Amino acid sequence: MNTNTENRGAVYCNEDVWSIFESNLQALQPSSIFVLTDTNTEKLCLPYFLGKIQPTIQWEVLQIPVGESHKNITTCLQLWSALSEKGADRKSLLINLGGGVVTDLGGFVACTFKRGIEFINIPTSLLAMVDASVGGKNGVDLGHIKNQVGLIKDPYSVLIDTHFLLTLPEEEVISGFAEMLKHGLISSEDYWNRVALFDVSKTTEAAKLIWESVEIKQKVVAEDPFEKGHRKTLNYGHTLGHAIESHCLTSAEKKALLHGEAIAIGMILATYISSEMIGFPKEKLDQIARTILKHFEKISFAKNEIDAIIALLKFDKKNANGKVLFVLLKDIGNCKIDCEVTNDLLYKAFEYYENLKKY
Amino acid sequence: MNTNTENRGAVYCNEDVWSIFESNLQALQPSSIFVLTDTNTEKLCLPYFLGKIQPTIQWEVLQIPVGESHKNITTCLQLWSALSEKGADRKSLLINLGGGVVTDLGGFVACTFKRGIEFINIPTSLLAMVDASVGGKNGVDLGHIKNQVGLIKDPYSVLIDTHFLLTLPEEEVISGFAEMLKHGLISSEDYWNRVALFDVSKTTEAAKLIWESVEIKQKVVAEDPFEKGHRKTLNYGHTLGHAIESHCLTSAEKKALLHGEAIAIGMILATYISSEMIGFPKEKLDQIARTILKHFEKISFAKNEIDAIIALLKFDKKNANGKVLFVLLKDIGNCKIDCEVTNDLLYKAFEYYENLKKY
Repeated sequence: MNTNTENRGAVYCNEDVWSIFESNLQALQPSSIFVLTDTNTEKLCLPYFLGKIQPTIQWEVLQIPVGESHKNITTCLQLWSALSEKGADRKSLLINLGGGVVTDLGGFVACTFKRGIEFINIPTSLLAMVDASVGGKNGVDLGHIKNQVGLIKDPYSVLIDTHFLLTLPEEEVISGFAEMLKHGLISSEDYWNRVALFDVSKTTEAAKLIWESVEIKQKVVAEDPFEKGHRKTLNYGHTLGHAIESHCLTSAEKKALLHGEAIAIGMILATYISSEMIGFPKEKLDQIARTILKHFEKISFAKNEIDAIIALLKFDKKNANGKVLFVLLKDIGNCKIDCEVTNDLLYKAFEYYENLKKY
Repeated sequence: MNTNTENRGAVYCNEDVWSIFESNLQALQPSSIFVLTDTNTEKLCLPYFLGKIQPTIQWEVLQIPVGESHKNITTCLQLWSALSEKGADRKSLLINLGGGVVTDLGGFVACTFKRGIEFINIPTSLLAMVDASVGGKNGVDLGHIKNQVGLIKDPYSVLIDTHFLLTLPEEEVISGFAEMLKHGLISSEDYWNRVALFDVSKTTEAAKLIWESVEIKQKVVAEDPFEKGHRKTLNYGHTLGHAIESHCLTSAEKKALLHGEAIAIGMILATYISSEMIGFPKEKLDQIARTILKHFEKISFAKNEIDAIIALLKFDKKNANGKVLFVLLKDIGNCKIDCEVTNDLLYKAFEYYENLKKY
């Protein structure tokens, strides 16, 4: 499976990825190769990767500590310096082997080292496969504000081997699953219904659903690469989701949430707001909330936490002219972008979420 | 004078720049404006700039300390945070009002803040007018290695008002003058001869020569925006020049050189190497060395310093596959790129320079 063979940023899945990797090397003729891993993927994914390739040129492994808290400029500085010290030049190739933190941060480092070297992403988490793999977004967090510093530039190619999913703890699978649910909500009721039954252990089915998810995202991004309009729909559930994620990352009272766990809550809130503001069907709202709570933990937020989360909204990158703008749904697969939502309705959405029963 | 009215990165000079600025604002409709200055340009250039414009929307001045030693990621972090705290969004506009440090660093900050906001460069030094203004290169230094982190992206527009040159100390004018001499050497004997007589105080003539310099650089960049071939000629004198600049910045024995002072030395060395390797005419070599030494201080380098400078060459961004490659001249206006030079010849070039008389 692949999307196209001509353009930068082509995504390939499963059967042919390692022969594609070989032809990429043939085409690029890099002067040296650096493989970026984190402490987990070096242990769990690097041996499989090395078993698949026969590097004939100089290569070296770079490692960053695992986790979102290291997705910052300090880590970039360490990598820029390491590349510099190890003699990387403009023809060097960076291979990002890991989840979204590795591909986001590694992509940013590659795009900015000596004004840009080539990079290939090999996503190893479900989240990175279905979300970070497409669209060329990269970057790092600034303090507690996510992805505040970064770029949009496609990697040379994206190679998805679903074998890596077997290395993931269940909670990490669940996290990528949230983005697949989102792809269903913004594009297709049929896909939504099938994803709701997703079982990662059934590898063949999983690969097919993952590939469909990649295709949905690619279609949206191709229509609007610089996020002037339709691409904003990919932000469904993310406006509040990001603020919740930031809040939990810094709050002493809360444990940090995985990206997908925060987005799952954001999607319930956004769907409630959709039903109140633009007539999203109530019965589907309840079905969506039930489906999400079947897979994701329900979190309680105190009044002062909700205040803090709403205050964080103003840092959202998608804002313009000082307004916080939401993507909402008229129905599954039918989005409305750039919706202004009153603070009052935001509090009501949290109230709706608070009153949901855990299934 | 302007280069084109359609494309990003258009450069405008003198008579119409402030009306262009107004139409840029009309076209961009920014949500807010940030003006980046350094400690010098805030004092010397900002009042003139504010006298020329009538900002009707919210704007704010950001300031960085003056000097190359602040062109680093720490300064970027402060600016990203300041933009974030002051509520900059994706529709905000950054105006870089200053020399090459301000336009290089400000451009990088704009390209990477929230994955890219618009920016306009208003170069106030001769060096920034004739060099940094064209080609979209931006970035910062990494430790003592220049421009190791950065991007290539054009500003929305570049506005050159030669009035700002009157604010410059003479040594800063001399520094930009080196790049104008380089433009002569790589493209035209006629221009070289006229630039050799450059007098910044004669504003009209200066504006014409500056504009020709911008046009020379634009022609080269347009042919080869990503520096695969011909654009490398702009690197004339820079391979050794950068290494000399880095060395003097960090060495306890040497005072820091301005970029142009280092490049001036680099051009003499490169021209000597050209005469030894590919037959550049000896009599022109001597004329070039004389012209340069008439304007630029002659520096003595001890043997261990030359060793250190040659060792630094390996960090040059233009290297590929571990080779240090030079631009050389067959004659004025006739370049040869990607030339490998032996260490032996490098030492001989320093010997030639050392033995030159100061005029």
